[in-house]
Amino acid sequence: MASITYELQKTCPHTGARAGLLHTPHGTFQTPMFMPVGTQATVKTMTPEELKDMGSQVILSNTYHLFLRPGSELIEEAGGLHTFMNWDQAILTDSGGFQVFSLGDMRKITEEGVTFRSHIDGSKQFLSPEVATKVQEQLGSDIAMAFDECIPYPADHDYAKRSTARTTRWAHRCQEARHAHDRQGMFGIVQGGMYKDLRKQSAAELVAMDFEGYSIGGLSVGEPHDLMNEILEYTTPLLPTDKARYLMGVGTADCLVEGVARGVDMFDCVYPTRVARNGMAMTWKGRLNIRNAAYSRDWGPLEEGCQCYTCQNYSRAYIRHLYKAEEILALRLVTYHNLYFLLEFMRQMRQAILEDRFPQFRMQFWDSFKK
Amino acid sequence: MASITYELQKTCPHTGARAGLLHTPHGTFQTPMFMPVGTQATVKTMTPEELKDMGSQVILSNTYHLFLRPGSELIEEAGGLHTFMNWDQAILTDSGGFQVFSLGDMRKITEEGVTFRSHIDGSKQFLSPEVATKVQEQLGSDIAMAFDECIPYPADHDYAKRSTARTTRWAHRCQEARHAHDRQGMFGIVQGGMYKDLRKQSAAELVAMDFEGYSIGGLSVGEPHDLMNEILEYTTPLLPTDKARYLMGVGTADCLVEGVARGVDMFDCVYPTRVARNGMAMTWKGRLNIRNAAYSRDWGPLEEGCQCYTCQNYSRAYIRHLYKAEEILALRLVTYHNLYFLLEFMRQMRQAILEDRFPQFRMQFWDSFKK
Repeated sequence: MASITYELQKTCPHTGARAGLLHTPHGTFQTPMFMPVGTQATVKTMTPEELKDMGSQVILSNTYHLFLRPGSELIEEAGGLHTFMNWDQAILTDSGGFQVFSLGDMRKITEEGVTFRSHIDGSKQFLSPEVATKVQEQLGSDIAMAFDECIPYPADHDYAKRSTARTTRWAHRCQEARHAHDRQGMFGIVQGGMYKDLRKQSAAELVAMDFEGYSIGGLSVGEPHDLMNEILEYTTPLLPTDKARYLMGVGTADCLVEGVARGVDMFDCVYPTRVARNGMAMTWKGRLNIRNAAYSRDWGPLEEGCQCYTCQNYSRAYIRHLYKAEEILALRLVTYHNLYFLLEFMRQMRQAILEDRFPQFRMQFWDSFKK
Repeated sequence: MASITYELQKTCPHTGARAGLLHTPHGTFQTPMFMPVGTQATVKTMTPEELKDMGSQVILSNTYHLFLRPGSELIEEAGGLHTFMNWDQAILTDSGGFQVFSLGDMRKITEEGVTFRSHIDGSKQFLSPEVATKVQEQLGSDIAMAFDECIPYPADHDYAKRSTARTTRWAHRCQEARHAHDRQGMFGIVQGGMYKDLRKQSAAELVAMDFEGYSIGGLSVGEPHDLMNEILEYTTPLLPTDKARYLMGVGTADCLVEGVARGVDMFDCVYPTRVARNGMAMTWKGRLNIRNAAYSRDWGPLEEGCQCYTCQNYSRAYIRHLYKAEEILALRLVTYHNLYFLLEFMRQMRQAILEDRFPQFRMQFWDSFKK
């Protein structure tokens, strides 16, 4: 029995959207789902109880960061990431590939893996398919990601082809390095840049390896939204319908609805937590910056009708005051609201899919949303 | 009917310690009690629900800070401080006197009041007995404090005498400026520096004005603990037994137990929240700095046996990691623990008084506590 199984519940007859359940060693979560990001073994400013209250069923944590600090051995000694951070529901860890890639001059890539300098203390470090697999097993996440090479945008076909081939070779090495199939699934990452022939080849090679799920990688890396959607629309049909599909680094309502329409089941992004720290609240009509003087005597909630803890209890004027006074509660309240907003957005999309009205949901969303 | 009434429940036959209830327009709180400080209309890093969970029954907020930002008119427009910050239990506000006094070169004191520069934008501002009384009525706190002049330590007898006389004149002006006796009580502040004759005179003059409670001011301003205790021991018997007594700016276990032994009912201090932000956890045995490398693989709680949310759910190793990674959850967890510790400490002292064993409690405390 695989540790991770996807149960398809409903497919939209007009789009690629689908509703399902992902069963993991730490419970089942509903899809489509947004995963809050807990980079350093904590979703910034939040407790696990708050995440559960708002309906989080799975969170993401970053292998790169935990590998460097506090170290995966320490977390393994704690009993794994779930115990360490007091989170008993599902956890997905990325492989660290994207982060080390983003280090630019501070990393060197060879066929063996990536040598890099720690952003914390400058120490020399090494990640490879084998190391990333071992580290994720030490962390004990429910879903591990294969260690891949992320293709920058733009990249020429030749570069993209060589890189995609390496991602496939690395995916093989990850599969071979696994020792915990019974308690951890692994997702393969489809690369190929913005080239359909390479996406097709990458998908075929990874699907042949029978991962427990698939991520569409190398998107949301600076390309136009239309191009992202085009590649997504081309790629998801290449993936098996009985496995979950995960689009990395996407977390705004407009991108989520279009991702879901193209058959994506899982998303993650630091966006809702990061912008909260600047006072940006996400709403069904777009963003608002609560620091704006216009809200200084606004006694209404961040979003009228929102059922989140923040909107049920605090006014825009109070939250604005907290930001101006640089109080930490400000960050907590807007982070809570933003994560709730995205989770509620996903719940409503899922309900629309289950009730055969996803196209209407999508149309209504675009009618009211201002980018 | 006075808005604030003190109900004496028990007096320790061997010390000045006493247990009671303070009835306010926003509920009754048990004494002796520690009041967490919510300077800017928020107890740093905490929600009102968390404060209630840990047993906070009353909080303190600072007139000086709220007067400058967001302004007391705005808070009045919000429906008062309780509504603004979503706290439905008792609130005590200080008068701003201590803060403007602490501004040093940035303030000028005359008989009329204090002119000062805002620490936020440098604007010229003015506080006086009448303004401080009005501002506190706009804030709508349950307990207001009279606007006093704080005597620095050390100060000569002549200076202390003139200053104490002014505090008495200002206390009269505060009483005359009040318009909300039915919904807000006011405490007078006994001054007199380190001089017993002046303390006696100050207490007599203020008690004659029939405030709803009395604060012992001008202590914990740099004098040795022994001297603080001596002045306290001299002063509290000068105050009526049917009114609450409040010692300002005291919030460490050692000072609290000695304050209670001398008949003090209420305390406040930023200490537990401030040191939490530096990783300092308060325990029955003294302080520990969770950032210390010794805790990197310590899987126990901050304090063995502690029933607080933090200790029930997180290890020292995890909290240390959060500090090293500069995560806000670190500040939340240690703030929660420190406030819980002080509230629990007060609860246990109160129980000891009620059960006629306060002297034993005090002795046991000193046996295990390391300063």
